[in-house]
Parts: sequence; C-alpha cells; structure tokens
Amino acid sequence: MDGVPPLIDQYSHGAVHGELGLGSFESHLAGAVGAHGPAPAGTSYFDSFTGLAIRRWCPPLLGLEPHCPPARYLARRREVGAYQAGRLLLRGSGIGTFLLEAGTPSELTSATEMATAAEARAHEVVRLEPLAEQVADTSGSVDSFIGNTAEALYAAAQHATAFASGAGYCDGHAPEAGEVRRAADRWLRARRPGDRLTEPALVRHLLWSGVATGLPVQLHCPDPQRLAAFLRATTGIGSDLVLLPAAPHHRRAAQLAAAHAHVYADTGPHPEETLPHAPFGKLLFSSGARGLPELYVTGARFFLRAMERLVREWTGEGVCGPEDGRRITGMIASGTARRVYRLGAETA
Amino acid sequence: MDGVPPLIDQYSHGAVHGELGLGSFESHLAGAVGAHGPAPAGTSYFDSFTGLAIRRWCPPLLGLEPHCPPARYLARRREVGAYQAGRLLLRGSGIGTFLLEAGTPSELTSATEMATAAEARAHEVVRLEPLAEQVADTSGSVDSFIGNTAEALYAAAQHATAFASGAGYCDGHAPEAGEVRRAADRWLRARRPGDRLTEPALVRHLLWSGVATGLPVQLHCPDPQRLAAFLRATTGIGSDLVLLPAAPHHRRAAQLAAAHAHVYADTGPHPEETLPHAPFGKLLFSSGARGLPELYVTGARFFLRAMERLVREWTGEGVCGPEDGRRITGMIASGTARRVYRLGAETA
Amino acid sequence: MDGVPPLIDQYSHGAVHGELGLGSFESHLAGAVGAHGPAPAGTSYFDSFTGLAIRRWCPPLLGLEPHCPPARYLARRREVGAYQAGRLLLRGSGIGTFLLEAGTPSELTSATEMATAAEARAHEVVRLEPLAEQVADTSGSVDSFIGNTAEALYAAAQHATAFASGAGYCDGHAPEAGEVRRAADRWLRARRPGDRLTEPALVRHLLWSGVATGLPVQLHCPDPQRLAAFLRATTGIGSDLVLLPAAPHHRRAAQLAAAHAHVYADTGPHPEETLPHAPFGKLLFSSGARGLPELYVTGARFFLRAMERLVREWTGEGVCGPEDGRRITGMIASGTARRVYRLGAETA
Repeated sequence: MDGVPPLIDQYSHGAVHGELGLGSFESHLAGAVGAHGPAPAGTSYFDSFTGLAIRRWCPPLLGLEPHCPPARYLARRREVGAYQAGRLLLRGSGIGTFLLEAGTPSELTSATEMATAAEARAHEVVRLEPLAEQVADTSGSVDSFIGNTAEALYAAAQHATAFASGAGYCDGHAPEAGEVRRAADRWLRARRPGDRLTEPALVRHLLWSGVATGLPVQLHCPDPQRLAAFLRATTGIGSDLVLLPAAPHHRRAAQLAAAHAHVYADTGPHPEETLPHAPFGKLLFSSGARGLPELYVTGARFFLRAMERLVREWTGEGVCGPEDGRRITGMIASGTARRVYRLGAETA
Repeated sequence: MDGVPPLIDQYSHGAVHGELGLGSFESHLAGAVGAHGPAPAGTSYFDSFTGLAIRRWCPPLLGLEPHCPPARYLARRREVGAYQAGRLLLRGSGIGTFLLEAGTPSELTSATEMATAAEARAHEVVRLEPLAEQVADTSGSVDSFIGNTAEALYAAAQHATAFASGAGYCDGHAPEAGEVRRAADRWLRARRPGDRLTEPALVRHLLWSGVATGLPVQLHCPDPQRLAAFLRATTGIGSDLVLLPAAPHHRRAAQLAAAHAHVYADTGPHPEETLPHAPFGKLLFSSGARGLPELYVTGARFFLRAMERLVREWTGEGVCGPEDGRRITGMIASGTARRVYRLGAETA
Repeated sequence: MDGVPPLIDQYSHGAVHGELGLGSFESHLAGAVGAHGPAPAGTSYFDSFTGLAIRRWCPPLLGLEPHCPPARYLARRREVGAYQAGRLLLRGSGIGTFLLEAGTPSELTSATEMATAAEARAHEVVRLEPLAEQVADTSGSVDSFIGNTAEALYAAAQHATAFASGAGYCDGHAPEAGEVRRAADRWLRARRPGDRLTEPALVRHLLWSGVATGLPVQLHCPDPQRLAAFLRATTGIGSDLVLLPAAPHHRRAAQLAAAHAHVYADTGPHPEETLPHAPFGKLLFSSGARGLPELYVTGARFFLRAMERLVREWTGEGVCGPEDGRRITGMIASGTARRVYRLGAETA
C-alpha cells in the first residue's frame, strides 16, 4: 500500500533458521493451518488460505513466478539455501520492527538474530510464565522462589519492551501473599522438570506483578470476557494492556478495548473482524508468525490487502477520503504500537 | 435510496437539546463507540466507524463539505446553535417516525419535543422496570406496590405504543403470586432511592404483565436464547415480541424470529447480520441512537447504505430484481414496524 | 461454474413426491426458513433468502422466467404435475450423487426413488438412533436389544455408505458394558412407541459402535467443541468423521477438521464461513435439503455462486490462478466426498 511505513509486528515468535527438508516444511505449515501431523492422503496443506498466500507472495521474493507449483518453490528454496531464503523473505515482508516473544526454543531466532536476518529492529516481549519456570529450576524454597521471581521480573523489565501473560482468567484483585505462597508450595512440590506453570493463583500473581512494572502487558486470552474484572480494576494504574484473543472472540476484544482507555486489541493479519468494533487507535497489527519465514510475509500481506480492500470500499462509498484511509492504516500498522510500546521514531 | 419511504426508527432514546461544548460532544461520542471517558492521548473518537460516518454525512446537513476536519464541524455546529443544528440533523436523517423509549432523563428530548424538532411523528415505548421503580417511590407496602404497578401499567397501556423489558432471562411460566410478593418484599426492603429494579422474579412478573396488555413488547436481551422458553410459551397470546439482542447474538435473534409467528428481530443499523437468517418480514430497523442528533443520521445512513449494497449484490447476481429489492428494503425500513406497532398509514 | 463436475450432496433427506397443494408448499417452505406454521398475516415465506433463490433458479427449470410471481410459479408446478416438476428440478440441480439419510418417513423419496427421479446416483446414510429405535420395537429384553442392535448395525454396514449420529456430546471413552446395560434398561422401561432415543449413554454407545465398523460417520453436532475429546480419542482408528455443526459453529468445526487428520467438516450451501478455517481438502458440500425438490436446486446454486464469488475475489487480488480456483471448488464440491465415502469414479 503506497504511503504506509514499515509495519510493526507486535506479536510473533522467532523464525527457524536451519535447513528445512520437505517434511519439516510441511510440518511447520501444518502448524500454521491449525493441523498436526501430515496432511491426509490426497491432500496438501498448500491447499489452504495460508498455502495459497505463500504461493502468491513468496515465490517472487525468491525470483520465481507467483503461483508456481509447491515442489518448484521448495526446490528453489533449497537451491538458494535456507539461511539466504529466510533473509530474502523476511526482508521482503514489509515489517520494519518485530516484537518477539522471548523464551523461544533455540531452533528459533532470537530478537538479535531476527534483527540481523530481516535488516529490521527487533524487541523482546518477555512471557511471564516461562520466566517463573526458569526461576523455579534454581530456587530451593517457596520463599526463594517468590523472591527470585520478583527479582527476575524486575531485571527483565529493564530491557524488555513488554511482558506477556497466558492468564485465561483474572479478577479484580491481586492474589494475597498467603494465597500466592500456598499456590507456589503446591506447584513446586508437584512439579517435574519441564512442567509448565499453570497454577491459577501463581499465573495471576505474575500478571499483577507484570502490570506493576508499568510496562505494557500482552494478554493471550482465549476469551477476553474472562478478564473483564481485571481490565476494570487496572484502569489508571499506568500499564497499557493489549488483548490477543482467540477466534471467535476478536469482536469482544475490540469492544473491551473501546471501553477502557488503557486497553488495546490485536487485529492479527485479518483486521476485518475487529475494525468495526473499536476506535481505530485501539487496534494493533500482528502477524502471529512462528517458524517459517514465509508466515511473516503472508501475515503482513494479508493485513495490508485487507486494509486496502476496506479503505477502497469506504472511499468508494464516500465514507472516507483516501488520506483518512492511509492515516487509519498507518495507525493500526505501526502508529499505535509505537506509542503503546514507546518505540520512539526509530521505525519511521 | 430512491423509492424508500421515511424510516420508522423502532428503538432510540431522546436527543440532547442543550448546547454542547467540545468536551461534552466527545463524551457523547465516546458513549456511541462503547467507550468511557476521554480518548487516550494521541487518539480521537472521530477515528472510528461512527466518527467517519459523522464526518461523511453530517457536515452537508449543516452546509459544509463531507469529511471536513472535526474541529471545523464542531465550530460550525456552535455557529448554527445547538438547537438549530439538532433540528437540521434530525430533519435530514430520513427518519419519519421515532419510537422513543420513555423515562429518559430530562436532558434528553421527550417524544413530543422530538416530533417538533424532527418534524416527524414520535411515539412512546414504556420501559417496564423504571415504571415500577417510580411506583415503588410512592408505595408504602408490598400490596400497594403490586396493585399500583398493575394500575400504572394499565394506564401506560392506554397511550404507549409498546412496552420494553430488560429481562435477560425468562422461562415459560409467569411467576406465581407468592413468589412475586416475596420478591417485592425483598426488593422494597433492600432498596435505596435511585436503585434499579433487577430482582429477577419482579422483572419477569413485569414482562408477563406487559404481554398481558396485548401491546407489542420489545425485549432487550443480551442473549435471546435465554428467552427461548418464554417465546414458545407466549405463542398465540396476542402480543408481538421484538428481540433487540446484543452482538454477537443477532443471528440467533433472527432465527428465533423465523421460528415463531409472533416474534420479530431488530436489525439495528447493520442489517447484514440478521438478513440471511429470517424471513424479511420479521426484521425491523432501529438506529439505537441516544444523545447526539448526529447518531440518528448515521444510524439511518448505515442502514440504507447496507441495504443498497446488499440489494445491488443480489440484483448483480440475478438473485432478485430491483423491485423486489425496494420492496424488501421498505418492509424492514418501515412496513413491518407499521404493522407490528399498529401505526396505520400515518407515516406513508 | 464451468469445469466443475456434478456435485456430491453429502447430506440431504428425501424429497416429497406426492402432489403439493398451495398450503403444503408453504408449510414445506416454512421448514426451510426455520419457521413453523403459516407466515404472519401480510408476510410470505417467499420473502426470505431461500424464497428469493427459489424464484431466481427454479422457474427456468419449469420453462418460466426467473423472478416470476410465486402464484404463477405454483400454478405452473401444478400444470406440469408434481412428479414431473420434481424430476425436472432434481435433474436441473447439478447434483450427480446424493447421500440420503435413511429412515426417512415414507412420504419422502428413498435413495432408489431419488436416483430414478434425479437420474443420479444415490446412497444411503444410516442414522444410528432410528436404527436402535426399530430394534427396540422388537426386542423383549435388555440383552436381546443390545445384541440385536449390534447385529442390525453390522447388517447396515454391509450396504450403507456411512453412518450418522446425533450425539451432541461424546467424550474419549466408549461407555462400559454395565453403563450401556443400565441405560438400555432405563430407556426400554420408560419408552413408549414412537419415542426417540435420547438416552446419552446409549447414543454414545451407538456412536462408538458405528466408528468400530470403519465406515465414515457423520456427526450432527450443534456445538462441535463438545465432541473434541471424542475426536482426539478416535485418531488412527480408521473411521473418518464428518462434522455437521449448527450455526454459528461452522468456524469451530472447520478448525477441528484442520486439527485432526481423520476429521472433516460440512460446508452446507454457504462455504464462506468454513473456507478460511480449514485446508480446502477437509471440507465437503451438502445441500441439507429435505422435502421440496426446489431446495436441492437452491442449495447447489447457493454453493456454486458462493464459490464463484470467492474464487473471483481471490483471482482478482492475484491470490490464486483460475485453475487453482476450479481445482479447489472441485475438491469441496465432490473430490473429497468421493475419497471419504469411497465412491470411486462413479460420479466423474
């Protein structure tokens, strides 16, 4: 879209940067279409919305025609080399700044590696639960676990751009010290190496601790309505909150963002569902990509095409002028993220 | 849309008719986009679907170009005077008949004031809970409260066009006298001045009493499915019922309207969600506006533009002829409301 | 749509083949728009999406102009004769293979009658609950009921193309023998002639028995999420499962189809809602028609028009080439059904 500055992708994970055999490409693609394991006999994950989009937008970045057969594309990818292909794809994605969720497994690029590969800026978003899991590995008692977690969180706040929480539910009060201690005791006793932190009171304690740092907090919430009391209770505290809901809750997330001055909502790559339900200044783009470099490209293209289509419809019906359209696209594409995450003019 | 007679707006509240400073305009606009308080720094509620629509359709009614900057529009509004601006906007809305929910606060226009300001017809819809709240203020005992409520309801039925209820849930049986007495006793004891009536058994008692008058009853139901047993039980009683659901329940409301001969569904300003799911004769337009005269304009324009777009798509694909399109639009825009609310030919 | 082979309609019931008076035509049409009984005074079920579609696509199959008035169409229908009109409509529907749910009442065509009337192929899908109800009519004890049901199911598996279940909920374990016996005892004792089988443990027992035959099983599930544990537990068992959800759960059905290699989802006549949420190879068309021959025509036309529109949008935006569009349409229209239901090349 002409006149739209580079995107800020407010939520994604790292990309794979090793070589990808045909099988592992398909298995990464499976994840992107919500599947597990290989496609049923006679079908291919390339026959999906995401698959069509990859075939449309990625071959040209590797010097091929759009829509070339998947086998030809994968051959070209191997020919170029996975590392170089990843660079070409990421640099062609139109994304100028990545907010990467940290604590990603080592097979995925770190923020620093991503910045280099994509010739872009990349910042860390620290997920709260893995941070506490790491602390638990080295803490001998409930007291040291709670204290060390607070320190780790404080340390992370010095360099992180935002925190992220997986709390599916949170009410309007931080859990009391006694409740947190009992929950920590329960979890530490039952815990085996590699266990994820899902103890509800601890997850909520982490969330309230994250909010207390004043950094923005991303909320991965299947149903944002279950955070309604928490959103009300955090009004005026100083932290901005960004809802990243699961389908079909995008509309509700947008409405909650509309209702609270400090709450924002993720549009993902498909802004159609949120756009009518919140002021445009409360919405932020993300690709949600992970793994295949192709997915940052398709996430960004899906988003820009949808915005172009919406703006074309509105201007066609006279509802807005072309300048308003560009301005609104720019807000969702990067302007609001720059303000909420205090990114300054670095990505201009 | 050519050939569409003036709209009947089956649900709205009064408009503000005093002067509006810049701050109070923004705070009314906030309400219309689902927000509270001022927009976050760096954003404006004009950057929203409703804001774009105001900028598109309202400036021309005050002699300005569409899409002029908000500041210019507000300056012009003050120049014209709030009272005269309100008249120009309401008269330009394309709405010929308003069904206003009564019991509105005094800062909003009554039905009579609305009729004068808009040069239109305006009828009262009496909300049942506030009517009982007023009775409670002057009733000394449970018995007198119940008796006086029945009388007030009977009196209201003589002049009202319809009743409205906020019952979120209602089953298939009117609550028994003893249950109503106990609920009234509980509520009257606990009640402090200004308290809203939310005691479930009383709310359901009012609803069944409203239905017994034979007038149409509007049902403000977040989730219409919770009224399913009530809808079944009222078949053939003689009262028509009109569902006004909250998003995302419009489709379900339309399906319930399809299923029951005496049930109808509100389309609001966005008929796309209900239209495919009920016979067209079961759907009624409303703006749902309150406060800003601009919102009646945008509600009506959103509705007519959406109907135009839908009819254009259908005729483009050959699914209907242009006459059918006009006829269907006319049914939803006014024809069905005229029949359900027995408005005669007054608005033709 | 050029180049699309005859459709496979993976789910419908028989058509009426007797004469239809005006009243019974309206009452069949009522069922198709989700209504019961006659339309309210002043309205007609022809004023609905389905009604418009009938007026658009059916008159030409009987030698009339599209959009002719309903009265004229019904007169022509009587003139031609119901039997011959049914043949003309079914043969003009574009459906080459019907999968008819068996156990339909005698007023509806059987698979054999349908094949003759439509000059098409027709296969039986055996609904599990009615099969057990018939067994119950002739079984004297719990033991004989359970044994005879197993035999009837085995016999049905020899000729049926698939089974269908109405289990709204099913978890990850087949009910144990004792639980099945107790449920059967409870149901057989309470049962009166004509009672439907709704005893949950029996319904789940039938479903697990159906899956054990290896035939595909259609799952009529209002909310597919309530089958999630069952879908996980049946991975690798060998039976394919096809979800037929109620609105608004099509998206969730598509996501579950994406997630499990052996799970598929019905698109019904409106593929827009499922298409973005699953690989295209996991989706199957159905008309869902019952009764009026007109409904097979409108189901098929709705589907093909929607696919044409989607493919036109995608190719217009360059997201896919025309060949991919035809190929994807062909998969959903018939290719996947042919594979899942092992229909061979008969319908090519």
